[in-house]
Amino acid sequence: MFITFEGPEGAGKTTILKMIAKNLEEKQYEYIQTREPGGIRISEAIRSVILDKAHTEMDARTEALLYAASRRQHLIERVMPALENGTIVLCDRFIDSSLAYQGYARNIGIQEVWDLNQFAIQDCMPTFTLYFDIAPELGLQRIAANANREVNRLDQESISFHKRVYEGYEQVLQMFPNRIYRIDASKSVETVFEECWKIITTHLNE
Amino acid sequence: MFITFEGPEGAGKTTILKMIAKNLEEKQYEYIQTREPGGIRISEAIRSVILDKAHTEMDARTEALLYAASRRQHLIERVMPALENGTIVLCDRFIDSSLAYQGYARNIGIQEVWDLNQFAIQDCMPTFTLYFDIAPELGLQRIAANANREVNRLDQESISFHKRVYEGYEQVLQMFPNRIYRIDASKSVETVFEECWKIITTHLNE
Repeated sequence: MFITFEGPEGAGKTTILKMIAKNLEEKQYEYIQTREPGGIRISEAIRSVILDKAHTEMDARTEALLYAASRRQHLIERVMPALENGTIVLCDRFIDSSLAYQGYARNIGIQEVWDLNQFAIQDCMPTFTLYFDIAPELGLQRIAANANREVNRLDQESISFHKRVYEGYEQVLQMFPNRIYRIDASKSVETVFEECWKIITTHLNE
Repeated sequence: MFITFEGPEGAGKTTILKMIAKNLEEKQYEYIQTREPGGIRISEAIRSVILDKAHTEMDARTEALLYAASRRQHLIERVMPALENGTIVLCDRFIDSSLAYQGYARNIGIQEVWDLNQFAIQDCMPTFTLYFDIAPELGLQRIAANANREVNRLDQESISFHKRVYEGYEQVLQMFPNRIYRIDASKSVETVFEECWKIITTHLNE
């Protein structure tokens, strides 16, 4: 079972992912908790090229190719071996982030970024995806309030960019109504967690 | 006019490229001489990830994605602006290298690597290509004799890999008989240069 966590910045998906991991742990499920680049050194090296604050001249397609490269290596070294062992994989962001950020918000086109990512993932799609729906203004407020969070090149983007990311996710949700569950992330952490856990247990009991 | 120089290791294409550049200079043509990453800092950063000798775990598709990313940025920052100014671009390796190395020799498939590269280059194909045809054994002997050449991750590949690269180029030549000129690179430097120069002047006078 391959579960991905998606949403705009500040949606709280990382917090919920940790709570789910803790619950799986207590119930003695085999699982891993990861995100790209996930400690894979080639993916880490790629990510440092992507997020370098100095690289303001980076073309949108270069960025999309680098994300796909980082995704590929992380998938091969970390996700696929876990899935082959029957381990549950919880992954913070995956292909839908590229569709929303590069495909829609950066105007490459969702279909083109989809095709590119198929080269990288070769049909290794998530079993299902939890989408944390939050208005971009509220998400950014939450980030600003979190003093521990490191600022990277993407955080330097304008509010209008983050609004476009939100619109991009809306498109992606329409494309995959069966795979992606929309979670109202403006609710309390407890409520959001309960909703997610209900979805996960339904799948675990299938 | 966008001219690319292709061939297996040790074919002598870089030597001939420099001679052609010198001749264009003397005849007062506007030109640039480049190769990926071509001093483009994002492409340089990507290249150092690709060629790091420690990265032996790199997946073939990750490698293909990284080459495409480096190509994209170099094209946007260096090749396209020159072509828009009517400057002749001499480029040491381009898409055909990816088709032969990653597509064929690494077994991804030429068509898949072609499609991937179309995402990166968006139809900005070479006007024509000079292919330096040399038996892989002879090419590798030439490299071994050149003490100044830096050894990178690709040089660590076996002779059988270099033979597969050669076979890959043969496939690519069959796909693009009108774009690619085959040059017998086993001949003397002078003969090879004359043959290339004849092709270039024909195109310049068109």
